[in-house]
Amino acid sequence: MKAAYYKGNKTITVEAGSRVAPGPGEVRLDVAYCGICGTDTHIYHGAMDKRVKMPQIIGHEASATVAELGEGVTGFSVGDPVVVRPLDNRLETPADRGFSHVCKGLKFIGIDSPGAFQNSWTVPAFTLHKAPEGIDLKLAALCEPLAVACHDVRRGRVKPGELAVVIGGGPIGILVALVAKHAGAHVILSEVNAYRREFAAKLGLEAVNPMETDLEALCQEKSGGSGADIVFEVSGAKAAAATMTDLLAIRGRIVVVAIYPLPIEINLFHFFWKELEMLGARVYEPEDYDQALELVAAKALPLEALITDVQPLDNIASAFSGLDSSSDAMKVLIDCRA
Amino acid sequence: MKAAYYKGNKTITVEAGSRVAPGPGEVRLDVAYCGICGTDTHIYHGAMDKRVKMPQIIGHEASATVAELGEGVTGFSVGDPVVVRPLDNRLETPADRGFSHVCKGLKFIGIDSPGAFQNSWTVPAFTLHKAPEGIDLKLAALCEPLAVACHDVRRGRVKPGELAVVIGGGPIGILVALVAKHAGAHVILSEVNAYRREFAAKLGLEAVNPMETDLEALCQEKSGGSGADIVFEVSGAKAAAATMTDLLAIRGRIVVVAIYPLPIEINLFHFFWKELEMLGARVYEPEDYDQALELVAAKALPLEALITDVQPLDNIASAFSGLDSSSDAMKVLIDCRA
Repeated sequence: MKAAYYKGNKTITVEAGSRVAPGPGEVRLDVAYCGICGTDTHIYHGAMDKRVKMPQIIGHEASATVAELGEGVTGFSVGDPVVVRPLDNRLETPADRGFSHVCKGLKFIGIDSPGAFQNSWTVPAFTLHKAPEGIDLKLAALCEPLAVACHDVRRGRVKPGELAVVIGGGPIGILVALVAKHAGAHVILSEVNAYRREFAAKLGLEAVNPMETDLEALCQEKSGGSGADIVFEVSGAKAAAATMTDLLAIRGRIVVVAIYPLPIEINLFHFFWKELEMLGARVYEPEDYDQALELVAAKALPLEALITDVQPLDNIASAFSGLDSSSDAMKVLIDCRA
Repeated sequence: MKAAYYKGNKTITVEAGSRVAPGPGEVRLDVAYCGICGTDTHIYHGAMDKRVKMPQIIGHEASATVAELGEGVTGFSVGDPVVVRPLDNRLETPADRGFSHVCKGLKFIGIDSPGAFQNSWTVPAFTLHKAPEGIDLKLAALCEPLAVACHDVRRGRVKPGELAVVIGGGPIGILVALVAKHAGAHVILSEVNAYRREFAAKLGLEAVNPMETDLEALCQEKSGGSGADIVFEVSGAKAAAATMTDLLAIRGRIVVVAIYPLPIEINLFHFFWKELEMLGARVYEPEDYDQALELVAAKALPLEALITDVQPLDNIASAFSGLDSSSDAMKVLIDCRA
């Protein structure tokens, strides 16, 4: 049994770990694959050292099989393929009004408690979604970011025939674009990085460089003069926040996916004048995982192409440092099998 | 027949005007009362000289009676009391997608074409809402700002029992607070001006000074720790934009009523973290006028108190200059009867 421990200062070491026997309501998993998320790279860079208790096993984009059931767990059998929705809402209160996935006391498994970069992982059974038999466990590891995209598109109420602009072509932006397209929208991806634009184009997405293309004019042209129905702001860039309202039609919608650490200037006049709507979107709800699993199982999206590399757990430190030196990688998976 | 002409540079003069015979689809009205709106004072100060063609008869918060019907007008009889919804959407196109009230080619009657500060006013019949017989025409003149408030509250989907904060206690803020309260919300009005707070309190509203009261703590206290369900931003103040997201519960809503001429800093992190929603709201739709007329006819709100003063048309210049020297006035009506 091995586990990868984040120890601060861009240091991750693989050492002997110990299996945690599942308590009541828990399940011990044999982890299959776990993707490296942008949040994991933030942790690696020390940006979340106040929150993470070192040494910390991180990782939250996992596929796995059930290894051992704790007392009272039903609905799962040893060997079942599963994915983990890494949200622990056991501190939820009535003041959260039922919005469990963003409750005030939410603990994120893999940040606030041990994560999936290990062979054996014990989690609450309520975090599990059973995957169809025979699912590709590499693709299943993409369910977590895919569920984010499903949540964003659902929150934005994307309808067939709508014009959607996705600003930012990293892994989440690409997934949002793919899910919005699958929902029937015409999608324009706005991305300044040429590699990412080429990558998106290979996936069948229309990708433009906002430094070269007049995105507002393009939206007008594609919509018969109305403007875009919806903008997904996934970039976190100041220029995106400043111009996103320009792109929209009357009653157009913005979904805020990016994390803006500081207040940022927004054109509120456009909100008034065009009666715009802006919706924040964070993580996912169970139905988003259900949809993500359906999309993976049905091979409805070109997800295979998003997996840039797969590295064994022993190589996790070099996988993290490699992501540091390249902005071209989409998703790097860690193979956590023993 | 007299009319008040705005001639630029804080100059409004009352002169002889001429009745305009109603063309096909038009109705000539005998104007009863017309309120002075914040927009009218902006025009008076020259802030809209690029848009207004001088000499211009302004005024758009009118009650009236039908004087003469143009060809093809049905559903109205001479003598009917009416209010005017001053939106001319005849340049609407399919690109506006049916949102007539904020269509790109919208002309605002009383700004882009002659308004109500005259004895006799000719308007398209589609702008008219018939008022119940016996309605108080002074109160009916409040229908226009009241319809704004009805639109804002409807756009915000206010439900009984919700906690609503209205930031800004001018005429529109007060009306939004009254309509939200009538919809069953618990309302807190945030206003820095002591006179306006006292005025609001006399109307039965809870009014607080955000410079003295910790509004965020108050919202927490009133909501059992959740925060407010909805904030109406009616002030246009930088401090309001900066702090409005602090007040809200998870999935809380903001309705942007104020006009911000310049981009302003907003806490987008709160949008992400609490999955907030922001909705722009501008003018009104026909059902908002219907609701406003119902509220006036039913005497459901203490509207009488909002009428600070009523002045004859001949005194309109001094009424405008008086508003300049006092921030205490709520609504000044001009009596436009011959």
